[in-house]
Amino acid sequence: MVHNGIEYGLMEIIAETYDLMKRGMGLTDEDLETIYTQWAAGDTNSYLLEITARIFAEVDQKTGRKLINVILDEAKQKGTGKWTSQSAMDLQIPVPTIDAAVAMRDLSAFKEVRGAVSKIYENKIGRVREGRDTFLPRLRNAYYSAALITYAQGMALLRTASQTYAYHLDLEEIARIWRGGCIIRAAVLEDLRAAYRTNSDLANLLLDPELSARLKERVKDLRLVVQEAAFTGVPAPALAASLAYFDGYRSAWLPANLIQAQRDYFGAHTYERTDEKGIFHTVWEKG
Amino acid sequence: MVHNGIEYGLMEIIAETYDLMKRGMGLTDEDLETIYTQWAAGDTNSYLLEITARIFAEVDQKTGRKLINVILDEAKQKGTGKWTSQSAMDLQIPVPTIDAAVAMRDLSAFKEVRGAVSKIYENKIGRVREGRDTFLPRLRNAYYSAALITYAQGMALLRTASQTYAYHLDLEEIARIWRGGCIIRAAVLEDLRAAYRTNSDLANLLLDPELSARLKERVKDLRLVVQEAAFTGVPAPALAASLAYFDGYRSAWLPANLIQAQRDYFGAHTYERTDEKGIFHTVWEKG
Repeated sequence: MVHNGIEYGLMEIIAETYDLMKRGMGLTDEDLETIYTQWAAGDTNSYLLEITARIFAEVDQKTGRKLINVILDEAKQKGTGKWTSQSAMDLQIPVPTIDAAVAMRDLSAFKEVRGAVSKIYENKIGRVREGRDTFLPRLRNAYYSAALITYAQGMALLRTASQTYAYHLDLEEIARIWRGGCIIRAAVLEDLRAAYRTNSDLANLLLDPELSARLKERVKDLRLVVQEAAFTGVPAPALAASLAYFDGYRSAWLPANLIQAQRDYFGAHTYERTDEKGIFHTVWEKG
Repeated sequence: MVHNGIEYGLMEIIAETYDLMKRGMGLTDEDLETIYTQWAAGDTNSYLLEITARIFAEVDQKTGRKLINVILDEAKQKGTGKWTSQSAMDLQIPVPTIDAAVAMRDLSAFKEVRGAVSKIYENKIGRVREGRDTFLPRLRNAYYSAALITYAQGMALLRTASQTYAYHLDLEEIARIWRGGCIIRAAVLEDLRAAYRTNSDLANLLLDPELSARLKERVKDLRLVVQEAAFTGVPAPALAASLAYFDGYRSAWLPANLIQAQRDYFGAHTYERTDEKGIFHTVWEKG
């Protein structure tokens, strides 16, 4: 089922790139067909991008319009993405891109409330501040980075699930099977296979030398795209969650010390120290 | 337990403002004590900000250093935030700020992996591009906005839980009780009470005229802070998730039509149309 969680994450990431190109750049369905066809080739190749390109070509029999524009924007779900997020929370493995995808499907279903909220707030979408020739290659790199980070989340979950429940999963073999044929098949799975061939117990794909070399080049574009989405007002929670996962993992220090201090302050939940083993509690000065 | 989910969200938002001020602006613990003391007054007042200010004053008995700096940055949890996120997913109510808080606590616990990842990637944190006098008021407004959006998520969850399980909850009364004394007590709960007094069945707090007037003024600063976090590399998933929730709700149209098209393409899961009631399936051109 982790497969389906990754699928939810990738679909939401693609939907966010669609929204950035449609509302943020004003591109047409014809543009989108062309662009997704380009993305479906080379090292961003994936089945989901292939079908996305074809979707933008499909004409509605009834109206003669592009079918995409008569489909209602309320995403449904059968619960497999939700199950991945819930299981990950039980195992305490962060899969924030998948969580964001589940939340956005849920949010999309509140179409009536969305309509009412949009009337209250300034709902104009800003324009992406870079030209098409600059921004589109960035967006592709952002897609590559966020997709890879989504696989990293899913594989880290599989690794821990395998250890916890003694499944003895072979992660290289799983990448090979997914590569062979399934909804999340993609060129990058070859690189995942190679990563697990080098180290079958890799704690996180972000640590693999080959993958990290690729990510280093491209994650700066994910960083810029997340800024541009926040600027324009296009909701891009899965892209933002992917970046935060990356930035969280590359932070040797995180502000979780404050969370531990708060927990000890209000609930005597104790904390650990940086300079000494053990469990500590402070009788805090209550001011 | 929704109370605890909101608590997780608010604590993560505060931790992100701490990180932005510490790593993104280079402020000292003394600065932080002063700033959080200011934030704990006026309309951003909350118990969590009050104790945060005091935490930055506490001196470690053993080392004579500020205690905050000897507390290990691995957040623990008793599972109440997780429970809120999991229940919300079952009820299909988006609570993405709370989800992000749970994920970041989980991520923080991987301190060893974080150390290894930080050595591979350029892990320098950029400097916030605005001066202190400009950025600090923005950050306070961003905190106000994200905190209000977190309450909106929690209250929307309570409303649906109440309907689904016939709890007959009085949301105004809940806001009153929380205001009276608990970990998430805050000045803004007075405004929540007023909102539910005006409309006891309000679908989302974003729709309340008084609260939306406040949010309109301040959410632009949340937008700028999210951009600045992405720029500097400070992970701010809860601030970003709050903004995306707002931007999602103010989008009368969302790209979920593409998700429905993909689901129908690869799994014949059907879709709805914008121009006609019913359930539809297309035999897609497979190219």
